[in-house]
Amino acid sequence: MDNFTFFNPTKIDFGTGKEQLIGQHLAEHGISKVLLCFGSDRIKRDGLFQTVSQSLAAHGIEFVEFGGIVSNPLLSKVREGIALARGHQVGAVLSVGGGSVLDSSKAIAAGVAYAGDVWDLFIGKAAIDAALPVFSILTLAATGSEMNSGAVVTNEATKEKFAIQSVHTFPRVSIVNPALMQTVSRDYLVYSAADIIAHCIEGYFTATTQPVLQSRMVEALVKTVIDTTETLLDKPTDYPARAEFAWAATQALNGLIYAGTAGFSYPNHMIEHALSALFNVPHGAGLSVIMPAWMKWYQGKNPQQFQRFAQQVFALETAEQGIAALESWFDKIGTPTRLSQLGITKADLPTITEVVLGNAKWFGIAEIYTHDVVVEILSLAL
Amino acid sequence: MDNFTFFNPTKIDFGTGKEQLIGQHLAEHGISKVLLCFGSDRIKRDGLFQTVSQSLAAHGIEFVEFGGIVSNPLLSKVREGIALARGHQVGAVLSVGGGSVLDSSKAIAAGVAYAGDVWDLFIGKAAIDAALPVFSILTLAATGSEMNSGAVVTNEATKEKFAIQSVHTFPRVSIVNPALMQTVSRDYLVYSAADIIAHCIEGYFTATTQPVLQSRMVEALVKTVIDTTETLLDKPTDYPARAEFAWAATQALNGLIYAGTAGFSYPNHMIEHALSALFNVPHGAGLSVIMPAWMKWYQGKNPQQFQRFAQQVFALETAEQGIAALESWFDKIGTPTRLSQLGITKADLPTITEVVLGNAKWFGIAEIYTHDVVVEILSLAL
Repeated sequence: MDNFTFFNPTKIDFGTGKEQLIGQHLAEHGISKVLLCFGSDRIKRDGLFQTVSQSLAAHGIEFVEFGGIVSNPLLSKVREGIALARGHQVGAVLSVGGGSVLDSSKAIAAGVAYAGDVWDLFIGKAAIDAALPVFSILTLAATGSEMNSGAVVTNEATKEKFAIQSVHTFPRVSIVNPALMQTVSRDYLVYSAADIIAHCIEGYFTATTQPVLQSRMVEALVKTVIDTTETLLDKPTDYPARAEFAWAATQALNGLIYAGTAGFSYPNHMIEHALSALFNVPHGAGLSVIMPAWMKWYQGKNPQQFQRFAQQVFALETAEQGIAALESWFDKIGTPTRLSQLGITKADLPTITEVVLGNAKWFGIAEIYTHDVVVEILSLAL
Repeated sequence: MDNFTFFNPTKIDFGTGKEQLIGQHLAEHGISKVLLCFGSDRIKRDGLFQTVSQSLAAHGIEFVEFGGIVSNPLLSKVREGIALARGHQVGAVLSVGGGSVLDSSKAIAAGVAYAGDVWDLFIGKAAIDAALPVFSILTLAATGSEMNSGAVVTNEATKEKFAIQSVHTFPRVSIVNPALMQTVSRDYLVYSAADIIAHCIEGYFTATTQPVLQSRMVEALVKTVIDTTETLLDKPTDYPARAEFAWAATQALNGLIYAGTAGFSYPNHMIEHALSALFNVPHGAGLSVIMPAWMKWYQGKNPQQFQRFAQQVFALETAEQGIAALESWFDKIGTPTRLSQLGITKADLPTITEVVLGNAKWFGIAEIYTHDVVVEILSLAL
């Protein structure tokens, strides 16, 4: 096991009705005015906005609305949020939505505390020394952003989809009420399943130090995602399944399964970020296309772990069978496994490859993921 | 899944050489004087004390020595530590040792901040409103105390072994260097294995709400403890096995596997606390005696989960086979499975039963664990 430091100070308040406590949580942290970030107006139609605003009012907390954050959130919108937060001198950022809203909220929180342009923090031009406190109410379980310090944002000018990470951007409190997720569309449920599985397997397959304990934890999460997704496709209102799915999503990227592992990388995310930056495909849909192709290309580099995956997750024998089983399962639940399903053709590969190669430097794996390798993986996904 | 709040602010600094960073961690928290708690003088002979004192000196941190804390730590010693901490006006408590030293340190930290007698905090006469910050360097992986807020202390006057728990008693930083544990005796290794397994299975078998995800996590931990214990009995210096064992111990009681579960209780701990309070047997040795007996008595109340345990942990079919396999495994590794091995006879059962019945009220399960039930379980352990 590699040396590691594990520190995750986010308080998770999980369960039915917990969104009613947001005012109380903010008050306990001495917050009197927040930037309330959200996506579409859906939260105004389904009652969540009202619940939140009542809870804030009950604790004398003012809020400034900042809606319209989209999937694969944009740098321009983050800049807009920073200006608004500064103008109103808010004391915290409250995210009400899924991973895109939360990531934007973290970027805004860090950007407010930085004198220069927020993109500097993404490209390593400056470090994050402080941030406004971030709070969240999660409406989609997928990215794990509710219990980690990362945030991914797309720079639409440069087509770069980059991330920040800092001890200052852990949410102070994240409220996870699985019942709020019962109205998530069938498509976004299966994309989310692919996203969670990607968070689990990137390290599992690529780490040069991967303790068996952590592999077992990953397998527990992946099996849970598979079981609960199938239950939810049948019955979206199954609360226990929704809750296990949500808690698996949180644990897939809260640092636990990566503790003590070393030498891992995120090649599937590296490639997928090019797809969502260029074609604005849903992140999970891009991942379910890339993963089987990448696994076919990569398996020979870590054959024992691929065999372990087949055996432990699918009760099958060989690495190939395990990969085929995952691809079949993606097909079965209806998340895409081919670039063509995303409207991407062979003619697009050069453009995608160029962006992937840019990402590869940033992801620190440019030596492995050369031009020919990227083309080979993408070709396997056609 | 039940509603829950998960919050664990302890920073774990895990790996070889990490004890050298203790001065830095304390300095980062603005600490200039600590009560340095430890057990025997072993840490002075093996160099750890010197490493720690050098690290403290390098950061200008004074310390007051407080050695002599024993297994099943005593209330009298905690009171002594409180007086010493007050007399020297230390700013924090630093535990260098295993669970007993750490639990004593937490009790001292809470006791210093409370005007009355510290035992009031154990019997619920007063709440813990504050505590000195606690830091730790762990030398034995077993209790999980390094990443939770609990502390168990024995009142030698009343033969009560009770616990405190509070948001104020989470260690700020716990340093876990598995290499420091290579000199743990064979006996304490196997007692520790039993202790960790007990932490895993108490909830697993007794919870009325036990999500499959949490069961899978428990099984991952139990399988890891079994595998790594066997490796370490063969080769105590196997670092990867020592590290996985230690990290499994931490995760078994840091709140994660209990998140979302409900209706659980700690009957094995309730019974064992009587054994260690009355006969001063090692906690893990008492647990390996009680667990198989309790499982035989309890299995009919949760047959599916006992069958699951047999299948998932031991690849066996029936509940009975799973229980027998665990008991055989305890026998194999050399941790006791019979009261007689602890020097306890049938003539002692009335005395033990009386203390257990007192504990049962405190553990909140007096209705289930009546006089006859306790006698029946203890008789199965004779």
